[in-house]
Amino acid sequence: MCQLLGMNANTPTNVMFSFTGLATRAQEHKDGFGIGFFEDRGVRLFVDAQSARSSPVAALIKTWPIRSSQVIAHIRKATQGQVALENTHPFQRELWGRYWVMAHNGNLVDFHPRLHGAFRPVGDTDSERAFCWLMQELAKSHASVPSVEELSRTLAELCPRLHRHGTFNMLLSNGQALWAHCSTHLHWVVREHPFRPVSLKDEDLRVDFAQHTTPHDRVALVATEPLTRDEAWTAMRPGELRVFVEGLPRPV
Amino acid sequence: MCQLLGMNANTPTNVMFSFTGLATRAQEHKDGFGIGFFEDRGVRLFVDAQSARSSPVAALIKTWPIRSSQVIAHIRKATQGQVALENTHPFQRELWGRYWVMAHNGNLVDFHPRLHGAFRPVGDTDSERAFCWLMQELAKSHASVPSVEELSRTLAELCPRLHRHGTFNMLLSNGQALWAHCSTHLHWVVREHPFRPVSLKDEDLRVDFAQHTTPHDRVALVATEPLTRDEAWTAMRPGELRVFVEGLPRPV
Repeated sequence: MCQLLGMNANTPTNVMFSFTGLATRAQEHKDGFGIGFFEDRGVRLFVDAQSARSSPVAALIKTWPIRSSQVIAHIRKATQGQVALENTHPFQRELWGRYWVMAHNGNLVDFHPRLHGAFRPVGDTDSERAFCWLMQELAKSHASVPSVEELSRTLAELCPRLHRHGTFNMLLSNGQALWAHCSTHLHWVVREHPFRPVSLKDEDLRVDFAQHTTPHDRVALVATEPLTRDEAWTAMRPGELRVFVEGLPRPV
Repeated sequence: MCQLLGMNANTPTNVMFSFTGLATRAQEHKDGFGIGFFEDRGVRLFVDAQSARSSPVAALIKTWPIRSSQVIAHIRKATQGQVALENTHPFQRELWGRYWVMAHNGNLVDFHPRLHGAFRPVGDTDSERAFCWLMQELAKSHASVPSVEELSRTLAELCPRLHRHGTFNMLLSNGQALWAHCSTHLHWVVREHPFRPVSLKDEDLRVDFAQHTTPHDRVALVATEPLTRDEAWTAMRPGELRVFVEGLPRPV
């Protein structure tokens, strides 16, 4: 199974610690990785068809404190589509003058939607087809970039139509919010004041966030499986869609 | 003035040497840099609002031999739009299931085209507006991805309409070919068998390409100003559009 990681924060935050935890899980997920960072409206998207354990890009990300308020990362274990750069998540498109970044974990069976709009897959994965379809349907539903609430309502109508085709664990962001849809495995946690030391589950690594934060900072993390040992992660339910804004989860 | 660098090769080639030459020129062009590498249909796009002289991403690219057959790099000196990630070239969009990457050097005055199609700027530069307009007009001209020849003919009609608004030195690629349009400054050179040692103009750096190539390799480079001392670069004429395929220039 692929591994997803999403971050949504009320202040630009660096995700090195959590990404290191995710990359450790790349041993069994050697078919590429990717990570997208929003900086305001701009996006840095790093993709590599190599494993996150050996990729020079992953090494850069683990040491370079990129500060972002929306991050989506993905470690791939190919189910559909060959191992190639164009099949590596997250995918990116532009809609209404905003970049959109999406990563998917799961497998959509016999999912070949009619893509009659402006979004076509470049690679040959079910995930990119699902992303193009979502973008097309969002574009049909709103004339210009709607509020986070309106977008959430539209996504709440669209996601079940993908979930019906199989497993659709997904993270999506347009730089304003992070949407998470769970089919099988997604967990979230909010880090806020008072911050405490936290240990990664898969690495002998411990960070005291109190030393790196201010009392106003708030960070929501979403991951396939809990990344840390000493935090209370909440499991999402099958079919649940949640939107994270300013580091806080909102039900949809 | 911004600096452009494009590469088109008949075999995946690493561009570290030429990028090092370009990055040296970043002293006066400190408003960000970016570089896009096609690997087949996939793209790696690195952008940074920092100078290419200090950016950790630029350091990675100078040491990591990414092999690509189409590369577009840009070092920015802001004329329109603030220094921000979303204003950093190259820009990327998807059309007909292919990624398109574009970088621009120049300044388009009073250029506010009617963008009624599926491509909207995320940032606020004349360059991204020009790219969105080009994508929109290409999308209107062809139903699906046309041949390089047909695309070249359409671009030959569209580029003069941008050139009319000011300086439009531009590099564009969809992974199949590299298009270069010159308003004021663009030079190209082809490296092919027999390969010889070459020295960078701006750095004390010399590479003997004979040691890194096979007799079949052919690489075309396009740059704002010649990057090397010992090669015969051809200056493009104002209004000239050229397409490079498999390392060879073709007139349009």
